Amino acid sequence: MTSQLPAPAESLATGQRSLGDPSVRYPLWPPLTEGCPVTSTDSVAYPVEVDYAYDKLPADFFATAASRPRGHERWAPLLPPLHAPGLAEGGTPLLPLEDGVWLKDESRNPTWSHKDRLNRVAVSAAAGAGAAGVVVASSGNHGASAAAFAARAGLRCAVVTSADVPPAVDAFLRAYGAAVLPVPIEQRWSLLRRIVERTGYHPVSNLTPAAHTGHGFGPEGYKTLAYEIFAELGTVPRAVFVPTGYGEMLFGAWKGFAELVRLGYAERVPRLYPCEPAAGGPLAATVRAGALTHVPVGPTAAYAIACPVGGHRGVVALRESGGGALLVTDEEMAVARAELARNGVWAELSAAAGLAGLRQQVARGGREGDGPVVCVSTSSGFKDRDLLAPGPSAVVDPKDWAGVERRLRG
Amino acid sequence: MTSQLPAPAESLATGQRSLGDPSVRYPLWPPLTEGCPVTSTDSVAYPVEVDYAYDKLPADFFATAASRPRGHERWAPLLPPLHAPGLAEGGTPLLPLEDGVWLKDESRNPTWSHKDRLNRVAVSAAAGAGAAGVVVASSGNHGASAAAFAARAGLRCAVVTSADVPPAVDAFLRAYGAAVLPVPIEQRWSLLRRIVERTGYHPVSNLTPAAHTGHGFGPEGYKTLAYEIFAELGTVPRAVFVPTGYGEMLFGAWKGFAELVRLGYAERVPRLYPCEPAAGGPLAATVRAGALTHVPVGPTAAYAIACPVGGHRGVVALRESGGGALLVTDEEMAVARAELARNGVWAELSAAAGLAGLRQQVARGGREGDGPVVCVSTSSGFKDRDLLAPGPSAVVDPKDWAGVERRLRG
Repeated sequence: MTSQLPAPAESLATGQRSLGDPSVRYPLWPPLTEGCPVTSTDSVAYPVEVDYAYDKLPADFFATAASRPRGHERWAPLLPPLHAPGLAEGGTPLLPLEDGVWLKDESRNPTWSHKDRLNRVAVSAAAGAGAAGVVVASSGNHGASAAAFAARAGLRCAVVTSADVPPAVDAFLRAYGAAVLPVPIEQRWSLLRRIVERTGYHPVSNLTPAAHTGHGFGPEGYKTLAYEIFAELGTVPRAVFVPTGYGEMLFGAWKGFAELVRLGYAERVPRLYPCEPAAGGPLAATVRAGALTHVPVGPTAAYAIACPVGGHRGVVALRESGGGALLVTDEEMAVARAELARNGVWAELSAAAGLAGLRQQVARGGREGDGPVVCVSTSSGFKDRDLLAPGPSAVVDPKDWAGVERRLRG
Repeated sequence: MTSQLPAPAESLATGQRSLGDPSVRYPLWPPLTEGCPVTSTDSVAYPVEVDYAYDKLPADFFATAASRPRGHERWAPLLPPLHAPGLAEGGTPLLPLEDGVWLKDESRNPTWSHKDRLNRVAVSAAAGAGAAGVVVASSGNHGASAAAFAARAGLRCAVVTSADVPPAVDAFLRAYGAAVLPVPIEQRWSLLRRIVERTGYHPVSNLTPAAHTGHGFGPEGYKTLAYEIFAELGTVPRAVFVPTGYGEMLFGAWKGFAELVRLGYAERVPRLYPCEPAAGGPLAATVRAGALTHVPVGPTAAYAIACPVGGHRGVVALRESGGGALLVTDEEMAVARAELARNGVWAELSAAAGLAGLRQQVARGGREGDGPVVCVSTSSGFKDRDLLAPGPSAVVDPKDWAGVERRLRG
């Protein structure tokens, strides 16, 4: 049934193909949600990506961008079909941090994280496929974002989450009417799969525990990061520092820049720097080992990017852009988070990994100090687990001016 | 010293004048933060507003808006001088809710509320006046927003707050390095005044307990709401529903629309509907009584707009726009908040007052059902006091499929 669904006229998407072997192609519908069944092996699971009729793109597509509606609609020809209604996702500001250094503040999205770029596309795939709902494994931003877009599209949403989901995020998930299902972490993937099989809900997050393949359409939504940065700077930056968990945003940003090169708007892609938690960096480990590597994840408060395994998308982005995999400690992220706060941006700890990566790279004599450089900040401080510590501020006695003065000095 | 400070070239601001008697004028510097000393009486405290050299505005100012940088910079000629650096404030999306009804989602601001429009301007006044810091009385969005802009400008910030500040908001305030000073509510104004007098910090919220006069420059920042709505719709809407506490945003939005009429872009201003909590609506009471009226504030979870006294700004906006003062119950706000969540927008309870007002107006046979109508949603659900109730989601046993199914049905 869904294979006959026509794409909205604006999308130039033509089909899916394997990221392991681009000659392995599939029709656009149905969206593949478990990677490429042909090229994947026991040791490497290859995702699919979407291909487009790039030759049909109007020559003035980027020059006229600002005159088109905001949200993914602005870039619809280069995205999978947008069957689900939007929330004016993306279009986030590039804030100057210092000369040549820009912050892409993704907390300005509809659910205050970058995940909205993916979920507009992934929930559109679910709507286009005729699913009654979506299901997502997430302890945070991804789940809330999926829940919001599902609600707006009139679809049900189930979020399989971990038992230690931060309280504010739990409330956030339930606010959009999602069914929140906390389970012990090792049972996440099996419950997700069971829900897909028994209810027909469309999975908008990863379904393959061996390595991350995720949704075939979703990461295409992150291409808009590259389009926006190019449109606003008028050029591609020298480098982009990206907080990285499974590497979907990293890949999407790379692909967007690669399309700019392919279309003749840019001469090169920026060097991309995935910034993983030092407590566990599967992409860094994979680069070192030369093969997909699982890692143990030690204690870290950067829960949004703490993953034991990455995926092939990150490997492609890193290899093709000539960047480097960085590992940043919780302490380095906390320092970067404080620097962002001094600049008026309250970021989640994980969100500060990009700036932490830049600072580390420069401190070690790296070459990216001369800009223009963009650090992506993925989300707001409201998402952090340590939000409610250390307790509320103590009440002040206004008559005790010396006490007030001490508090003013901080 | 500060009276010699030149305004940045872009601002067409010429001076301040009383809202009680427009013939009473003051120079632009220093900004008046306690209302108009000449026209105010014991019974009515009149704020000041800012006047501009409207005749110097380029004729294509609105037509070329999209080509100018985002943030208040886009509208700088019609704002007080922007001495403090910005955070790309404003520029929030108008989301379609249904045919003819639009939601202005102010949670897409730098600190995720409408207050950023005011604080960019008020903190600029502090920077322009050479103050070492700013001080604000607030239990939420206003304080966090002031703290963010102060941090970005390199100014200190003190937030005099109530002892029952929600935990997430307390963390939010401290994140930007503000000194958070919880005091019993009845001591708020006296401590604020004491800090101003003893430290020279510039007050960016109200300083006059008798009636709200607030900062003379700050509410000018809300004019951008009107500019953006006009630029995006290509016309002025029939009506705008505005969650209302002290009425600063209500006034700013009205003034922005009135300027559009004055400049020849529009023929009329929209009818403005301030939506106050039924637990205490000082503007509605003032309209009924024909004189500034204090009200007792009963129990309400809409803490962001629960005020015992309003101010003359709201009276002007209501009188000049021909709208009406609405009182919405917590229950009506909760229903509107749920409607917003079904549309993918997680709003604070107070933020849903605008949509609650529209729904009430239509249910009672009001005339605003035919659109285009705009409801302002001021902030995100992360700010609510009831955020952490009712406790975390219970853990699921994935082997108990019947239990999972019950949860999926919700």
